[in-house]
Amino acid sequence: MKATVTKKVLSEGLGLLERVVPSRSSNPLLTSLKIEATEQGLHLSGTNLEVDLASFAPAEVQNPQAFVVPAHLLSQIVRTLGGELVELELSGDELSVRSGGSDFKIQTGDVAAFPELNFPSQVDATVEASDLARALNSVRYAASNEAFQAVFRGVKLEKRDNGARVVASDGYRVALHDFALEGEVRELIMPARSVDELVRMLRDGEAKLSYGEGQLSVTTDRVRMNLKLLDGEFPDYERVIPTDTKLQVKLPSGSLKESVGRVAVLADKNANNRVEFLVTEGQLQLNAEGDYGRAHDTLSVEQSGTEPAISLAFNAKYVQDALGPIEGEAEMLFAESTKPAIFRPAAGGGYMAVLVALRV
Amino acid sequence: MKATVTKKVLSEGLGLLERVVPSRSSNPLLTSLKIEATEQGLHLSGTNLEVDLASFAPAEVQNPQAFVVPAHLLSQIVRTLGGELVELELSGDELSVRSGGSDFKIQTGDVAAFPELNFPSQVDATVEASDLARALNSVRYAASNEAFQAVFRGVKLEKRDNGARVVASDGYRVALHDFALEGEVRELIMPARSVDELVRMLRDGEAKLSYGEGQLSVTTDRVRMNLKLLDGEFPDYERVIPTDTKLQVKLPSGSLKESVGRVAVLADKNANNRVEFLVTEGQLQLNAEGDYGRAHDTLSVEQSGTEPAISLAFNAKYVQDALGPIEGEAEMLFAESTKPAIFRPAAGGGYMAVLVALRV
Repeated sequence: MKATVTKKVLSEGLGLLERVVPSRSSNPLLTSLKIEATEQGLHLSGTNLEVDLASFAPAEVQNPQAFVVPAHLLSQIVRTLGGELVELELSGDELSVRSGGSDFKIQTGDVAAFPELNFPSQVDATVEASDLARALNSVRYAASNEAFQAVFRGVKLEKRDNGARVVASDGYRVALHDFALEGEVRELIMPARSVDELVRMLRDGEAKLSYGEGQLSVTTDRVRMNLKLLDGEFPDYERVIPTDTKLQVKLPSGSLKESVGRVAVLADKNANNRVEFLVTEGQLQLNAEGDYGRAHDTLSVEQSGTEPAISLAFNAKYVQDALGPIEGEAEMLFAESTKPAIFRPAAGGGYMAVLVALRV
Repeated sequence: MKATVTKKVLSEGLGLLERVVPSRSSNPLLTSLKIEATEQGLHLSGTNLEVDLASFAPAEVQNPQAFVVPAHLLSQIVRTLGGELVELELSGDELSVRSGGSDFKIQTGDVAAFPELNFPSQVDATVEASDLARALNSVRYAASNEAFQAVFRGVKLEKRDNGARVVASDGYRVALHDFALEGEVRELIMPARSVDELVRMLRDGEAKLSYGEGQLSVTTDRVRMNLKLLDGEFPDYERVIPTDTKLQVKLPSGSLKESVGRVAVLADKNANNRVEFLVTEGQLQLNAEGDYGRAHDTLSVEQSGTEPAISLAFNAKYVQDALGPIEGEAEMLFAESTKPAIFRPAAGGGYMAVLVALRV
């Protein structure tokens, strides 16, 4: 096998794989990637057992052959090369990587022992890659990284009238985002960590979804990815979304983010970073108190609804997370002091966060 | 005490102090800073016991008074404030920090218990702050962060014909930088960690040095700093600088940095990141070998000297450190395979690194 490929193309392909393939593992094969040289170019693939990833690098190839190399090592070598073209040559189980005045020899692994990765070709649905990325990005924070129950570490995909919804919850808050999708929507739960990898792979263009047995596959111009799905029953999150809100406020999301950030400095870390919200007479007052002192902040808001005032408390960190995806005007909808509240962009756009209030 | 100060000025002053004052300590007073409000403004000072730092923030002050507050907390609060002006008011032992719609109350500490910090006013020498910063920055890497002997964790200042020199060594390498200085030079050793703090404080303008008992003080427009000095005998580093070099090479420092970075990928981490240098016939060949394979790189160099060829080995990491401060053309001067080698900018400028060669 002998291949000539541009450094840029190879290095991009390896960079994608490097994100998924672990740099250390008790099984060294898992730190490797498989390169299948064909007459069109190099098919690169690797897995962390949760996510399989494949990318393609066009190349001039003689004597096509498949081989296995340490993923991070090859990526690091190619990144540091000086020339614009890279020549790969396999002789026995040694791979030469040459470019400019450089010549690297690295040991290849056992290609027969490498796990079989299958990327399906059927397409069940299509979506704008940037829409899918934005939706996943907006809800990801609400999934737990540690929760005992797996579904709290997942992001659910479900069908909506005009497309699809992704939703995540750790039991204390819910984040959801609706988006347009063409084709079938199957209800499924992706591990949030795999969602992080998926979001990194999504750019512009179209993403094709394919539903498999315990697996979701996503294909874009650049990559193909399989995500192993989570089993379990996602909580009935719609139950906690208040429907009878009695007081609504609108204000610039930037001002609210800054204000919450300010008072949070003095909020008690051992009491859920508690920040009290008091809405009355077109003002939102924020109060926090901790070991080092007290913070008080006042913001003007556009207030509406049937109740003249409301007072409730939230975890400052959760409020900041909920506001994260909101740009421009934010809207907060309150039911009662003990009931969850809604945070969403006043202009719509598909995103909504629901926060459980802290006890008074 | 009541003071009005711009957020920008106060926040810059606090930002400087925040770098030095520890955020945690078994003695909470050490995490505090002292604010002495005078009719001219606010004198801020703090210490980590190795370095004392003072800065000044012009302010409008009524009823001048001194007080002590948690440094990081105040800095964090001021940074997040929305308004342009900040009002500080002391009532009893509670400090109010007000700006825009925000009002923070924080507890002050015991001003009598705060360590007495003295910043001398005499000037023994003056130097361009940027020259001093560059010189210290260039040699800092050669000081150890862990060595058992304190002097190896220090940077020495010493007198030279046309000014001063700073030099650091961890026993395996030496870095030195000569620079212009007006006035007296006293031989002294600064802890490298304090040097890091000093470098961060130095900008443009003049730095005034003042030598005290076991202490160096540096004053600039913005800050005053005391550095506690190290005791001990600095090693006779001049002994290891080769004077009879027999082969010299010149090449662009960028190409050499890249090349060393490349071959270092395969160098054996357990064998000092060993990279072999072979100079012959106007070429520098670099070779490294480790568990995963072998790397070979070739660079064209401008070769001179009485010896036709030399082969020696270095720790790749040390070569990269030595090249760090060199821009443009680099010069390497070799004596023998077992002797230290010199790395310096071909254009001069005061910097030189000396590297011990690894055994063949």
